[in-house]
Amino acid sequence: MSDKPWGGRFKEGTSLAVEAYTESISFDSVLYAQDIAGSKAHARMLGRQGIITPQEAQQLIEGLDQVRAEIESGSFPWKRELEDVHMNIESRLTEIVGEVGKKLHTGRSRNDQVCLDFRLFVSDCLREWMRLARSLAAVFVRRADENRGVLLPGCTHMQPAQPVSLAQHLLAYAWMLKRDVERMEGCERRARVSPLGAAALAGTTYPLAPEMVADELGMYGVFDNSMDAVADRDFALEALFCASVCMGHLSRFCEELIWWSNPLFGFVTMSDRHSTGSSIMPQKKNPDVAEIMRGKTGRAYGNLFSLMTIMKGIPLTYNRDLQEDKEPFIDSDKTLRHSLSLMAEMLDGLEFHAGRMKEALSRGYLNATELADYLVGKGVPFREAHRISGRSVALAESRGAALEDLALADFQEICPSIGKDVYAALDYGTAVSRRNAHGGTGPDPVARQIEAMKLWLAG
Amino acid sequence: MSDKPWGGRFKEGTSLAVEAYTESISFDSVLYAQDIAGSKAHARMLGRQGIITPQEAQQLIEGLDQVRAEIESGSFPWKRELEDVHMNIESRLTEIVGEVGKKLHTGRSRNDQVCLDFRLFVSDCLREWMRLARSLAAVFVRRADENRGVLLPGCTHMQPAQPVSLAQHLLAYAWMLKRDVERMEGCERRARVSPLGAAALAGTTYPLAPEMVADELGMYGVFDNSMDAVADRDFALEALFCASVCMGHLSRFCEELIWWSNPLFGFVTMSDRHSTGSSIMPQKKNPDVAEIMRGKTGRAYGNLFSLMTIMKGIPLTYNRDLQEDKEPFIDSDKTLRHSLSLMAEMLDGLEFHAGRMKEALSRGYLNATELADYLVGKGVPFREAHRISGRSVALAESRGAALEDLALADFQEICPSIGKDVYAALDYGTAVSRRNAHGGTGPDPVARQIEAMKLWLAG
Amino acid sequence: MSDKPWGGRFKEGTSLAVEAYTESISFDSVLYAQDIAGSKAHARMLGRQGIITPQEAQQLIEGLDQVRAEIESGSFPWKRELEDVHMNIESRLTEIVGEVGKKLHTGRSRNDQVCLDFRLFVSDCLREWMRLARSLAAVFVRRADENRGVLLPGCTHMQPAQPVSLAQHLLAYAWMLKRDVERMEGCERRARVSPLGAAALAGTTYPLAPEMVADELGMYGVFDNSMDAVADRDFALEALFCASVCMGHLSRFCEELIWWSNPLFGFVTMSDRHSTGSSIMPQKKNPDVAEIMRGKTGRAYGNLFSLMTIMKGIPLTYNRDLQEDKEPFIDSDKTLRHSLSLMAEMLDGLEFHAGRMKEALSRGYLNATELADYLVGKGVPFREAHRISGRSVALAESRGAALEDLALADFQEICPSIGKDVYAALDYGTAVSRRNAHGGTGPDPVARQIEAMKLWLAG
Amino acid sequence: MSDKPWGGRFKEGTSLAVEAYTESISFDSVLYAQDIAGSKAHARMLGRQGIITPQEAQQLIEGLDQVRAEIESGSFPWKRELEDVHMNIESRLTEIVGEVGKKLHTGRSRNDQVCLDFRLFVSDCLREWMRLARSLAAVFVRRADENRGVLLPGCTHMQPAQPVSLAQHLLAYAWMLKRDVERMEGCERRARVSPLGAAALAGTTYPLAPEMVADELGMYGVFDNSMDAVADRDFALEALFCASVCMGHLSRFCEELIWWSNPLFGFVTMSDRHSTGSSIMPQKKNPDVAEIMRGKTGRAYGNLFSLMTIMKGIPLTYNRDLQEDKEPFIDSDKTLRHSLSLMAEMLDGLEFHAGRMKEALSRGYLNATELADYLVGKGVPFREAHRISGRSVALAESRGAALEDLALADFQEICPSIGKDVYAALDYGTAVSRRNAHGGTGPDPVARQIEAMKLWLAG
Repeated sequence: MSDKPWGGRFKEGTSLAVEAYTESISFDSVLYAQDIAGSKAHARMLGRQGIITPQEAQQLIEGLDQVRAEIESGSFPWKRELEDVHMNIESRLTEIVGEVGKKLHTGRSRNDQVCLDFRLFVSDCLREWMRLARSLAAVFVRRADENRGVLLPGCTHMQPAQPVSLAQHLLAYAWMLKRDVERMEGCERRARVSPLGAAALAGTTYPLAPEMVADELGMYGVFDNSMDAVADRDFALEALFCASVCMGHLSRFCEELIWWSNPLFGFVTMSDRHSTGSSIMPQKKNPDVAEIMRGKTGRAYGNLFSLMTIMKGIPLTYNRDLQEDKEPFIDSDKTLRHSLSLMAEMLDGLEFHAGRMKEALSRGYLNATELADYLVGKGVPFREAHRISGRSVALAESRGAALEDLALADFQEICPSIGKDVYAALDYGTAVSRRNAHGGTGPDPVARQIEAMKLWLAG
Repeated sequence: MSDKPWGGRFKEGTSLAVEAYTESISFDSVLYAQDIAGSKAHARMLGRQGIITPQEAQQLIEGLDQVRAEIESGSFPWKRELEDVHMNIESRLTEIVGEVGKKLHTGRSRNDQVCLDFRLFVSDCLREWMRLARSLAAVFVRRADENRGVLLPGCTHMQPAQPVSLAQHLLAYAWMLKRDVERMEGCERRARVSPLGAAALAGTTYPLAPEMVADELGMYGVFDNSMDAVADRDFALEALFCASVCMGHLSRFCEELIWWSNPLFGFVTMSDRHSTGSSIMPQKKNPDVAEIMRGKTGRAYGNLFSLMTIMKGIPLTYNRDLQEDKEPFIDSDKTLRHSLSLMAEMLDGLEFHAGRMKEALSRGYLNATELADYLVGKGVPFREAHRISGRSVALAESRGAALEDLALADFQEICPSIGKDVYAALDYGTAVSRRNAHGGTGPDPVARQIEAMKLWLAG
Repeated sequence: MSDKPWGGRFKEGTSLAVEAYTESISFDSVLYAQDIAGSKAHARMLGRQGIITPQEAQQLIEGLDQVRAEIESGSFPWKRELEDVHMNIESRLTEIVGEVGKKLHTGRSRNDQVCLDFRLFVSDCLREWMRLARSLAAVFVRRADENRGVLLPGCTHMQPAQPVSLAQHLLAYAWMLKRDVERMEGCERRARVSPLGAAALAGTTYPLAPEMVADELGMYGVFDNSMDAVADRDFALEALFCASVCMGHLSRFCEELIWWSNPLFGFVTMSDRHSTGSSIMPQKKNPDVAEIMRGKTGRAYGNLFSLMTIMKGIPLTYNRDLQEDKEPFIDSDKTLRHSLSLMAEMLDGLEFHAGRMKEALSRGYLNATELADYLVGKGVPFREAHRISGRSVALAESRGAALEDLALADFQEICPSIGKDVYAALDYGTAVSRRNAHGGTGPDPVARQIEAMKLWLAG
Repeated sequence: MSDKPWGGRFKEGTSLAVEAYTESISFDSVLYAQDIAGSKAHARMLGRQGIITPQEAQQLIEGLDQVRAEIESGSFPWKRELEDVHMNIESRLTEIVGEVGKKLHTGRSRNDQVCLDFRLFVSDCLREWMRLARSLAAVFVRRADENRGVLLPGCTHMQPAQPVSLAQHLLAYAWMLKRDVERMEGCERRARVSPLGAAALAGTTYPLAPEMVADELGMYGVFDNSMDAVADRDFALEALFCASVCMGHLSRFCEELIWWSNPLFGFVTMSDRHSTGSSIMPQKKNPDVAEIMRGKTGRAYGNLFSLMTIMKGIPLTYNRDLQEDKEPFIDSDKTLRHSLSLMAEMLDGLEFHAGRMKEALSRGYLNATELADYLVGKGVPFREAHRISGRSVALAESRGAALEDLALADFQEICPSIGKDVYAALDYGTAVSRRNAHGGTGPDPVARQIEAMKLWLAG
């Protein structure tokens, strides 16, 4: 007869291959802190509700503290045959405190326990992600602050469009990260809700006090419906989505760093600490970290899709398919955590080359819009001004020159209204300064963005 | 020379194949209302800021109203060669109001305009989704209310676990929908933010008042950074995610309906209006709607993945790849809208068969836990009680009988502590009533859930 | 100065966080056998081509054999700071054979070496998958062979449609697996092609003989273009796709097993070795393995999407993003391997309940089509026959009876043409036997399928 | 009572919302040619097998020809209430040929008919994709042939690595397309297999000759198992995968074109026909087509994921979820078809700028490996040579010069072994010519690749 706790009707034990296939201890041991915190809160509540005696509650809590100490000191005897983190802890607890250990499970089931642990874990991760995203945003803001005067080509369609300040460019990423944090906040509030008391699926017959457990664990509330409580993984999907979008943001900056490192751009030099070379090609300095980070975006996406596929079309309530929720999440957590902190480090060590950026402004005719606007100021209709500017660009291009390198005579041949004051209008700094309205690249809105960001980061 | 508005430097027109490949009018015309509303707000603001005269603003607004009327009456002359909804409207506006029509575009660019329209469209859709999700939740609540007394097997692992009330089962879906609505609310607040004033990417040189536009359009705020404003599609990703999770919820209920319709379950009969038959097999009644809805979940997922892939690794700011954001969203909108309303209709017409559900309770030995609990009440240790109950199930199973069909003598042979009162304990209704704590399947928590839901739905 | 082999231009070493982020030794050590086999073949070729001496080649080969022996005996000193499996092996080789060890890398680069190893690994995995898929198909065929006479409801729309033999149902999966094997064969031929000689990206200046290496390694050919060779990961995508489709097939059978295990179906009992129970609910026997396997399908899908995302829009040639190709593949390999072999074991231990299946035939009116066909045989037009059969079903349903339980008088009241011979026509066995044409569920085509399958399996 | 052909047991008609939700005529009418071809082959076979008379067969075939003519001339009266393309055609056929029209459906069911049509459609699309992929490969080969002498930086990690010929770079894509074609060939053989005779799911009672139908339709064989035949969509998944990988290849070239168009690269100019400008910024020439194509890759991926999700965990045999197979496929077909042909057109019109490419070679120190190799030739150990080359690059970089611009004295100060012959070694053309082994960038292997490709394209 099977020696499993549920083995009554079973004549044969589980196949070894099955144990290997269904075990989760190889990855769910990372949830030990959440499992123990949840069990302590449950024990305390059982004691306060008179379901067990206060002494028993105390024994359980002390035993759980000892288990935690053993795990953290590395002396805990993990056993694969006990399948998961919960059984490992419970079994060791009973060794420590004796028979009373078995009372810990009163009024709860593996289904609501697993779900509690995972909700705590996911929301703890979300908090860490928010902390790291804010730290990274702070670096973007600092580097923006340092580079207010640096100009580079602002691109659309990856074609030079209008000059922008490097500060504006970097701040764009800070705002993305702020949105990520806001999205994670909403997710964290939905995730950190206690399912304890849902039991297997139908609720419990014991007079539990779920809100007492939730309070102790710093949760925002308790479950509404026992069947939904054990069947739901929305919180994990949403967290995986938040991680995917955030990785997507990082991937965009990675893409820029990779190209900006190419000698034809030469806008940035990565620090030696964040690059690698080639054992064959002596001139190489490769932006490996940025490349791997761009690649790891695929990993975060894959994890999201993995769980979405799992959730499609499965009936209520708990199905064992749901055990497959943890590995993708743990992987995305590791991926995002490392990526956020490494990006902060990498951005911090980045050297910007204002000279190369300035050169690129001329090469890209980034002041062509300014020339058109200048002509409009002289009374030329916009459509005509656009055409004149286009013709001027073509002339300069044919000479391998910048617009500002054309002689006044050249300009006047194309359009006699052009005067000496055109050169002031063609100045890239002027172009940036003129875009001084809300949210633009001009010095005032950039300064206001930096202030607003600092305020948020301090909050 | 090209006749496009940007054709100055171009010697050849666009290839026909290119026009077909890059046009968007075949799908973006659904954004006409948002485009016109945005343009009216922009025109009014230009007038108030003195950038155009009040008379010009008025002319533009009236012209735009006429365009809208033409579109809604079906008389608007859509032209594919004008590529997108924006050019179609602007071009017709200029026909109507003359030269002043060209002033509408002052201080804005296609990039921020497209983005404004899409943000309005996405948030309008989210509002409709929320309305429909609430309506569907109301039907779940009503059907739950009507079926408080009906019991059926609550399943885990798709194996009968404990009896639950049909009300509890149906309410589980109402709570999922409530979460969907909450998630959509957060998304809608992030989506309904105005990017107008970001212009092409760098902000504008005109003294615009973006918050005035945002106010008129009922938006929650304005963009923070011009480059981010035109490069960002987080709001669309998030809305596609919300739609995917919501479809996932529906797919779970569809799965249940499909199996419950199988004659071996026989728990439900779909109304004729929501089923189809077979031209060959006269006995068939197929749950087609539920099947297609389960299938369409894949579609919603695919649309999310499509846009996530697009966003990966593209540099700032606007890239034309982003044009591919609309079709997946429009498809997901259609899918979710129809699915939510059709599910409400289908649920409304569903006939539940309490008798078949009750039969299933006996077949599934759903009172085996009760027998164990009964024994614990008699002082038998739980592990032993579990074993005795398991043995009783085995006996009943061997006779093709339910637990409650065993004779007292049968029970006593297995365990002499069992008395006549066991039959009361085996009652399914009792089992359900005992789970009367917060969130459980008992009558009190179910009643409280219904109250809470009604309150939310009224709010 | 950096101590990396490429450190010439570098002033600072790599950050620790970077090392942790970019290392691959934690997962790529599984490629050791392929790396060593590839290096041996390369060394032998270098010797034969006179690029190194035959003695040097021999030394390298013997050194590599020793490395392999060390790894397989567990004595190999893996070092994380050496980053990947290739550097670990090369470094140890040089310890063993001295300076000549450095000659191994002549004419090759890390880029083509990594790609060779991975192609060998992927194709070795594909071979193992094919072997396991054939083994599983053999079990399906055997169980089909044993159950030719067992009938069950064939479903469309998950509604009983027509009776089929269990053999036919099981054989459907055997044919899916055969398709999987064929798809994997095509993939394996494309994967097992040698990139060695592509060097970093531009080819080599040494007179290598790539086809000699390919021959020794049992590969089907050599690369065509050096840039494509190091940039391509089609073979990995295709293998991940093959694994996903195959998991998808398994997920369909899992879904059936899960429902067939529900007591209302009762079509199968899983062996105790492949089920678990519940510590609370004594009546439970959960199909955990089938559930987890259905869930792991999501994992296989996620891995495919991970790599597809990575490959989107990256320029030629090798980019470090590609390092992210291995983990998803290794995970899918593990997933598919275990799933195929566990499914074979589970299917082998499955008990089919012919009695419950037969019961289901009556409950589902699976002979309604036969009744209509019978009437057509009596000269009734099909549409009318369909209607009469439908009415008979309705009558039987109202009495909770099967069609064959209706009295002749009942039938004749609905349609006087019905005679006593109707009962023979209503026999489920007859219904199955009549579908005796190619590929149908009748005994002849089933026998022919079993023969054809056995032939393929023997081949 | 319902007027549907299966309406016998139904008291109410289908809800309008249901009709809109479940109809497929809005997209499946594109399958008309396959449906009619399949029906003609079926009719002919029925006639030859004596199931209907030869005259009846002839009438059906002529009627079907007329239906086809009506559809192609635009006079066919499509009716949405007839739900799908099959019913529309069948219903019109019966109007044309009278009662005999109803005999067409003898021995087949909607399930095998739909599947036949879709298999023909998918394999017809695959054939067209192969044709277009070959055409595009031919353009890559032609452009390669024209540009054998043009050199540009070959990149790894998007950093200049070694000089390559433009021909080699372009040929890399030709080889990818060849692999695409090979993958599609395997898929096409698996897709073009006839399911006719599987009927609803269990096979037919009529003496059909499925191989006769398959022959007439140019199919490679017939189904093996009736249940598998109607439940399988592997062929569609595989085709969607082939399309995704092919789009992935195009997306890589698009990425390159986008960056090469940036003025800092300036490697290419797109023809005016394949670019757009900006109505605001006169200097702009945007690579819109390349951007949209890169974006549409996400679309192809999404479609694959959509169907993969649908197929996960659905039981045998046909489920209505499968109706959702067509829209993603039709969309991917359109996407791939247009992308392949537009890429051919765009590539054809591309202007390459050899001068800018050459400039980039100097800027990227693409001859640093050559310098190291030169030193090895002088007897310097490679590791030392690598270091010397690195130091030379650093010196040149500090002066904003290329390696070949350094004076001999400069070189000799770093390493006295360097002689005047270093300048020949630093020549980029020499570097390329030296890589003349199989598959490399040298002139011989490039010439051989072009020959091999021409042979394949002619085949």
